[in-house]
Amino acid sequence: MGKSVRIIGEVVQVQQTSGPTIFTVSDETGTTWAAAFDEPGVRVYPGVNTGNIVEVLGEVNLHGGKIQIESESIDRLIGQDSVDIRKLIDDAINERAEPDDTEFLIESDTLNLLRPMMHNAAKAIRRAILDGRSILVRHHADADGICAGVAIEKAVVPLLKEANNNSDAEWHYFKRAPSKAPFYEIEDVVKDLSFALEDVERHGQKLPLLVLLDNGSTEEDMLALMKVKIYDIEVVVIDHHFPGQVVDRTVAVDEYVDVHVNPYLVGGDSQITAGALAVEVANMINPEVTEKIMHLPGIAAVGDHAASDEANKYIELAADRGYTRDEQDKIASCVDFEAFYLRFMNGRGIIDTILGLGNKEKHGKLVNALYKESLKRVQTQLRAALPNLKTQKLPNGIIFNVLDVEKYAHKFTFPAPGKTCGFVHDSIVQKYGEETPIVTLAYGPDFSVIRATDAVNEMFGFNLNEIVWKLAKKIPEAGIDGGGHECAGSLKFVEGLSKKVLESFAKEVVDLGK
Amino acid sequence: MGKSVRIIGEVVQVQQTSGPTIFTVSDETGTTWAAAFDEPGVRVYPGVNTGNIVEVLGEVNLHGGKIQIESESIDRLIGQDSVDIRKLIDDAINERAEPDDTEFLIESDTLNLLRPMMHNAAKAIRRAILDGRSILVRHHADADGICAGVAIEKAVVPLLKEANNNSDAEWHYFKRAPSKAPFYEIEDVVKDLSFALEDVERHGQKLPLLVLLDNGSTEEDMLALMKVKIYDIEVVVIDHHFPGQVVDRTVAVDEYVDVHVNPYLVGGDSQITAGALAVEVANMINPEVTEKIMHLPGIAAVGDHAASDEANKYIELAADRGYTRDEQDKIASCVDFEAFYLRFMNGRGIIDTILGLGNKEKHGKLVNALYKESLKRVQTQLRAALPNLKTQKLPNGIIFNVLDVEKYAHKFTFPAPGKTCGFVHDSIVQKYGEETPIVTLAYGPDFSVIRATDAVNEMFGFNLNEIVWKLAKKIPEAGIDGGGHECAGSLKFVEGLSKKVLESFAKEVVDLGK
Amino acid sequence: MGKSVRIIGEVVQVQQTSGPTIFTVSDETGTTWAAAFDEPGVRVYPGVNTGNIVEVLGEVNLHGGKIQIESESIDRLIGQDSVDIRKLIDDAINERAEPDDTEFLIESDTLNLLRPMMHNAAKAIRRAILDGRSILVRHHADADGICAGVAIEKAVVPLLKEANNNSDAEWHYFKRAPSKAPFYEIEDVVKDLSFALEDVERHGQKLPLLVLLDNGSTEEDMLALMKVKIYDIEVVVIDHHFPGQVVDRTVAVDEYVDVHVNPYLVGGDSQITAGALAVEVANMINPEVTEKIMHLPGIAAVGDHAASDEANKYIELAADRGYTRDEQDKIASCVDFEAFYLRFMNGRGIIDTILGLGNKEKHGKLVNALYKESLKRVQTQLRAALPNLKTQKLPNGIIFNVLDVEKYAHKFTFPAPGKTCGFVHDSIVQKYGEETPIVTLAYGPDFSVIRATDAVNEMFGFNLNEIVWKLAKKIPEAGIDGGGHECAGSLKFVEGLSKKVLESFAKEVVDLGK
Repeated sequence: MGKSVRIIGEVVQVQQTSGPTIFTVSDETGTTWAAAFDEPGVRVYPGVNTGNIVEVLGEVNLHGGKIQIESESIDRLIGQDSVDIRKLIDDAINERAEPDDTEFLIESDTLNLLRPMMHNAAKAIRRAILDGRSILVRHHADADGICAGVAIEKAVVPLLKEANNNSDAEWHYFKRAPSKAPFYEIEDVVKDLSFALEDVERHGQKLPLLVLLDNGSTEEDMLALMKVKIYDIEVVVIDHHFPGQVVDRTVAVDEYVDVHVNPYLVGGDSQITAGALAVEVANMINPEVTEKIMHLPGIAAVGDHAASDEANKYIELAADRGYTRDEQDKIASCVDFEAFYLRFMNGRGIIDTILGLGNKEKHGKLVNALYKESLKRVQTQLRAALPNLKTQKLPNGIIFNVLDVEKYAHKFTFPAPGKTCGFVHDSIVQKYGEETPIVTLAYGPDFSVIRATDAVNEMFGFNLNEIVWKLAKKIPEAGIDGGGHECAGSLKFVEGLSKKVLESFAKEVVDLGK
Repeated sequence: MGKSVRIIGEVVQVQQTSGPTIFTVSDETGTTWAAAFDEPGVRVYPGVNTGNIVEVLGEVNLHGGKIQIESESIDRLIGQDSVDIRKLIDDAINERAEPDDTEFLIESDTLNLLRPMMHNAAKAIRRAILDGRSILVRHHADADGICAGVAIEKAVVPLLKEANNNSDAEWHYFKRAPSKAPFYEIEDVVKDLSFALEDVERHGQKLPLLVLLDNGSTEEDMLALMKVKIYDIEVVVIDHHFPGQVVDRTVAVDEYVDVHVNPYLVGGDSQITAGALAVEVANMINPEVTEKIMHLPGIAAVGDHAASDEANKYIELAADRGYTRDEQDKIASCVDFEAFYLRFMNGRGIIDTILGLGNKEKHGKLVNALYKESLKRVQTQLRAALPNLKTQKLPNGIIFNVLDVEKYAHKFTFPAPGKTCGFVHDSIVQKYGEETPIVTLAYGPDFSVIRATDAVNEMFGFNLNEIVWKLAKKIPEAGIDGGGHECAGSLKFVEGLSKKVLESFAKEVVDLGK
Repeated sequence: MGKSVRIIGEVVQVQQTSGPTIFTVSDETGTTWAAAFDEPGVRVYPGVNTGNIVEVLGEVNLHGGKIQIESESIDRLIGQDSVDIRKLIDDAINERAEPDDTEFLIESDTLNLLRPMMHNAAKAIRRAILDGRSILVRHHADADGICAGVAIEKAVVPLLKEANNNSDAEWHYFKRAPSKAPFYEIEDVVKDLSFALEDVERHGQKLPLLVLLDNGSTEEDMLALMKVKIYDIEVVVIDHHFPGQVVDRTVAVDEYVDVHVNPYLVGGDSQITAGALAVEVANMINPEVTEKIMHLPGIAAVGDHAASDEANKYIELAADRGYTRDEQDKIASCVDFEAFYLRFMNGRGIIDTILGLGNKEKHGKLVNALYKESLKRVQTQLRAALPNLKTQKLPNGIIFNVLDVEKYAHKFTFPAPGKTCGFVHDSIVQKYGEETPIVTLAYGPDFSVIRATDAVNEMFGFNLNEIVWKLAKKIPEAGIDGGGHECAGSLKFVEGLSKKVLESFAKEVVDLGK
């Protein structure tokens, strides 16, 4: 304390307070804050900006347990000096970003194969914290996506607090936002880029690290990701949606993705959820929070109807942590219900309560209340939908159910058409059993939602994405779009060709097995 | 000034400025600010948080007429000491929160019966100001609801300025937001809770006091209120919507409401408006502003078509204040018109001008301009609607009018379907007289809006809420929802059952009196 | 430095920092900041407010190259003293606001006639910067409107930085927001007024200067402008939409507009774009940025399909700056595409990249990527629309095309119905040639969009606005509304009268030339 020091490092942010100007400087050993003061609120050293290499001379002081330098001088280094220093710092941060060796929460061959990608994901996130970038998490707005987002949030926030001189750091350097679609929409990327570029210009920040969860792997993500890459933003994707053809553990979207974690890349499938993958990555990022979020993969698995060894193990793990499978199901339902109303908000406080990360008593009360209410609303939809559901057994043995969800369900309310289709489908599955091939189609004027039992996939090789591509080719004038998982997804088309598209889809189902 | 003091009290907020940390401390005599300083922008005493009981030693200084303590030490008290002190403070604040004895602006037996509830409402609001909670006002977005919200705003803001060390206090500690529906929607509560919980975590604030105006009494409010109560947020409701069956001055929603003011609780009805009740409560909170807001109940009464002794007295009162009944009507129309475009904004500056609380010349100009324009838009709707209105006289003497409001009115513009139905209804009433039993139904694909003259209620016991419940039971597959006042409200259903629902409703009207 | 001074001037803003209170004071020579300090965060001189004339005594200090006064006293002047001073300052600011004499970028008689209005527009904007008002720019959200908005932005921001003591000034004192409609909507004015009035009350700011670009000239703008004028907000309009009948260079909207630039006022028409006019005004405001924005009028002209000598000269000018006509077209398409997703955001960073104002490499990549994607989406729409387009040659020689755009195009996606109609129209024009009279009508349930070749205007005197007025009179019950340019615009009506309105419109087209 009080002794004179000399620090050489990279400026990672310049903040003008109403008192001194604060330069955040990273060197190979860590991050320091150098305060420079001329008069209150006046930016000093206007020639020194984010990204520059500087030499700081000053006196060490302690600030709430953190070291801050009262600078006497800050000089910008240029030429070979700055190149060498930059390299030194870069190597050092890289080393500090290296995650600890941790074990997976469950045993799984697929996870073992994914370990290098997951390691890279964890490292990329740790590195962003250390080199002063903010982290922007976008995730699908369902139970799986939210579990994934919360897991990364809980791992990152304590590290941000540790790494920054600012009690508000967790709010400035970490943002989590849900995406309504199961892919990264242009509407979202436009918003994210606008804010990120303003942060650069207005607040002297670096561009963020983008982390896409339960999102980001498919062709529908490509336009948004391409835009992000034009601005040289680093992208981590942790997803379990079908990413298209895999060649050498690489898929189409990888042109724009820096680190890609997806079971399909190593021969797995969507039955390991994004929530599970994200919790495992969170465990690599910050093992101290693992204890707290260990039950999230179970909730994600139940929420996503995942059926796999891994899913079962995670559900058991959550049961060991005090959440029965039934409770996991209730929690997942509540997250979905709340997500519907949260829309573009992350609802951190409420979601923490629902997921059991906050006050336990409030957790119990809130889950009970929301579950009861969501059930009531589902039943309202089913009461209207089921009497109007047309069910037939096709010659190939498939039970095919069709619903006009625009007419026989409440609109703009929970459950939305996709979920309504799911609940209708589930009620038929309950009647005939999961091993029966069952396809349910709920349609509106210019869209339809499809659910099928895994049996349809296993018995007939049903893959919704392939049917969507086939119909898009067959009826080009319908502007067909959509897809999702093999047995769950959507189909969009222009209203005027609705009849032709739906009949063609039905024909595809009728022809399965031919 | 400059002398040493010792203060023992409760920490009600901790604010980190870019200079010192400011601890807001309440004791039995009032609120004081203790500044503690280590280095600029650094949080001192991290162990002392909102809600703790502390002992502050320091030197008194004056800050713009308010006392602030330059603290030498702040120590947290624990155990019995803190319990005793807390009790002492609590009692003292309770006493200071006690409203003055004031008289009602008019004479009314119903108001006299409601006095204890209104007193409690005023006290709860005064207490929240004193113990450092923010006040979140949610009100229906019509003339009545807005008059109610503005009345509370005008009463609370000066007290907040007085009680706080911060010129921005009125913006931080008071929020007023309109709700589109006449009940507290899940969309709204989710937003309110998200922000409130973030304020707690991020800004060290207490949870707010929630004040629902012209909203909050009915079964449709219950889910939202239940969520609020899980987080132990105090709730004051001032409403005049039909709250369901009253037993011992208690209704269903009271499970989640701390103070409930509603004329139905004491045998009154919706003809005393929420605006009037709120102005009377505002008068208890802060009698110094009463003069300014005395004309609002008249506007609320005219806006809500309230017909009662009380309504008439308030309209006269406003006339005494310089607003003729005609002007009250124009102002109410302008508020409704503006509210349509304000949507989720409270539009404080504009609304103040319209309500005559700001510049008088601008008030005159703006009201004239808006009234003319709103009239023009109403006439545009009527020009499309009236030629397509189907009117018949039923055997029971009721004039029954039906309009397809989706087809014969502009959509997504002012006036919206509900108001359009009202204007159509009014034009029929003008033709046949108010004592004629007239029912008007305007329907869209999955909703309808209903207006009836009081005569239908008086002659046939017509209560829209009861018909909604009856139809909901009779056609469960239609997912019927809705309600409102006895003679004005809405009916929602799934599109596919529209015909059945509307025919059943018509049958109910035909059968009235049988 | 360090010497004592005495300044007399007008207070234009009072900002409370967490340190001193900062009074921004303007006198006849410029703007100075006077810091007054009692204790951190406490407002001093509560009797001195925005708009007052004051005498400041203090000591001069230098703040990052700007002079700031550490005040010893600030006294408010009243009576004749303040009147005289106010006059003195006003004259001085007026003189400093006077734009330099600059030449137009191209030669044009219409521009020469418009010069006095453009000079006044530039002066009004310069004056707002100097007297401490913020500038609120609203522009149509298409390529033309955005070029206009960006031109003003680029001219104003450097002057704001120069004039203000605050590195964040450009964000506080300049706001640019797109408007979806080609007029100033009530939804927008309500938002703008709410925020402006809150800035006055909460942040001690003056009311802003409102600048409407590619917007503001028509009858549809009048209600919004009237509201703005009630609050005495100064309004500058730079537009090229048909403003109705011109008498003495004045149109209806001029009742509420302080400076109006529109080619129609001097006998010109919409073929000089708002983007071109705004760039010429930007050149008057701040000639130092002209070099940078000289290519924008070309993009605006191509984007707006402007056909005139002026348009051609601007397109050549942009070609000289390195953007071929083809590239200008691509850039315009990209701006339109991005604007669709930006909605209410200005997307400054992204738009700068697209318009070539930022990094050149990113510009190339982004334009290519967006253009390719926008083309793909247009083709998807055309693939659905063209097979369902009904085309007939009328007896008067007009090729009349009709499309149900609700059924045969994707909804809520790019391109929206208006643009879809444009692309369909363009594909027909490509087939028959631009000199053929072609009218294209794309309709939905309660609206239609119309495009016509200039030939229809030249051969038959076709003016969409006149047809809209005629139909509105003929079918009053349809609540007809709409308009736009002579050969491009929209028609809105109530759904139930759709058939009658569309048939009447068709009849008008059939009757052209009769």
